[in-house]
Amino acid sequence: MTAPSPKRPRTHPAYTLLYHPSVPGRGEYIRLAFEASGVSYSDPAKEGTDGYDEVLAVCDPSSTGDEDGNPPVFAPPALRVPGAGKDGKALVIHQTPNILLYLGPRLGLAGADEAEGFWVNQLALTALDVNNEAHDTHHPVAVGDYYEAQKEESLRKAKDFRENRLPKFFSYFERVLKHNESAGEGKYMVGDKLTYADLTFWQVVDGLHFAFPNEMMARASEFPFIFENFYPAIKEEKGIKAYLGSDRRLEYSMGLYRHYPELDRQ
Amino acid sequence: MTAPSPKRPRTHPAYTLLYHPSVPGRGEYIRLAFEASGVSYSDPAKEGTDGYDEVLAVCDPSSTGDEDGNPPVFAPPALRVPGAGKDGKALVIHQTPNILLYLGPRLGLAGADEAEGFWVNQLALTALDVNNEAHDTHHPVAVGDYYEAQKEESLRKAKDFRENRLPKFFSYFERVLKHNESAGEGKYMVGDKLTYADLTFWQVVDGLHFAFPNEMMARASEFPFIFENFYPAIKEEKGIKAYLGSDRRLEYSMGLYRHYPELDRQ
Repeated sequence: MTAPSPKRPRTHPAYTLLYHPSVPGRGEYIRLAFEASGVSYSDPAKEGTDGYDEVLAVCDPSSTGDEDGNPPVFAPPALRVPGAGKDGKALVIHQTPNILLYLGPRLGLAGADEAEGFWVNQLALTALDVNNEAHDTHHPVAVGDYYEAQKEESLRKAKDFRENRLPKFFSYFERVLKHNESAGEGKYMVGDKLTYADLTFWQVVDGLHFAFPNEMMARASEFPFIFENFYPAIKEEKGIKAYLGSDRRLEYSMGLYRHYPELDRQ
Repeated sequence: MTAPSPKRPRTHPAYTLLYHPSVPGRGEYIRLAFEASGVSYSDPAKEGTDGYDEVLAVCDPSSTGDEDGNPPVFAPPALRVPGAGKDGKALVIHQTPNILLYLGPRLGLAGADEAEGFWVNQLALTALDVNNEAHDTHHPVAVGDYYEAQKEESLRKAKDFRENRLPKFFSYFERVLKHNESAGEGKYMVGDKLTYADLTFWQVVDGLHFAFPNEMMARASEFPFIFENFYPAIKEEKGIKAYLGSDRRLEYSMGLYRHYPELDRQ
């Protein structure tokens, strides 16, 4: 977890991220928002031996909600915010884009006004669609089965993703960066400062570099805003740079983004 | 389109839904929000011969945004709201859950307070995840190809969806309805009135009835809140009942929800 930020000195973090240990996964989109803004957070599954129990409890598949009046959680990531729920109780929410929506204005990552807020949100949602399609390249027909049991289908899905979906999505984000060039200088998608849309798409691009290194190298020149401006610039944002250099940043492995050489461009 | 509602008499509708003609698709989640609340809207692709041109123009795959400062749109549905953007210009936003988020409080469909608003949003997002997985049962490996070209993969994906994913999601929504039973009486998921979470999940359940009639019939007794309370009750909501009985409600065909008997329970 982060060192206490100057904004919240010597107090227990106001936010608890409930996610799996060991993989970046969808929790990483939330972590990046905290890290970029320098706001401290708890991440119990990463912090201690009993931490993951708290995550498993909140996602119990027989739960009908908690004692604070929160509805059940479908799956991690979830966010707990003491005092922010009904009658001063804890608020517990889930769904990655919903958590980003909640945190966005509180962490200063949601744009300068209401219109920008909805643009930021639509861009984060679209980036998360890419995330989901990247996941499906190694699990196209049965989420609960092993990759090895759906390898033939994966080869076909990955080919379609690399040849059709990735360029379609990247063309879109390239045009978004171009649209905002005068304010964002090719590094911010909305307005003239960092938002959770940037962080979310950055994590997608980073994950795709891990999963499909050949494909990404071959595509780089097609999308100069993304590859030459945006991707390296976000990496240099103060909080992000510190985070990426720390041991808090988990390595990719057998999570959402996986490197199977046979699925990459040959 | 709807008759002018009492709330906006004799004025041009404040909201324009930009979506494909002929299929309910993702546009239907937006239409249901308008219809349930009795707020009038334009739906140009359904209204006239040139209407679809407006939709195609806003989603032009070479667009870098519009003259009102809106970023490009990735795909329909999009929403145009004159006067709601920067400097009194038109706001144009996309992504189904983002449009629902925008309309929710404006149409009185987002719950009673901030906590409820985030619960409503997470439930709509989770329902839309089911929507996406239902789509993928007939397009598991190549979104742009014909179903017939990926039928073997579809049989396997549909089996996994019916046997694993559908019961997992339905168990979740059943527990949400149970959690809120005292306020929602088994028909509302959050609080004591209709929200866009209810409308979104209702449309998913309705689409699944069309796509997988055998599976749904076989599962009905497992999820009594959903099948006996929620689904029939939302159908009787005033605006929804009138809409479903009108010629504005499009029939399912070759869109998101498709009925291929071979993909259903045998």
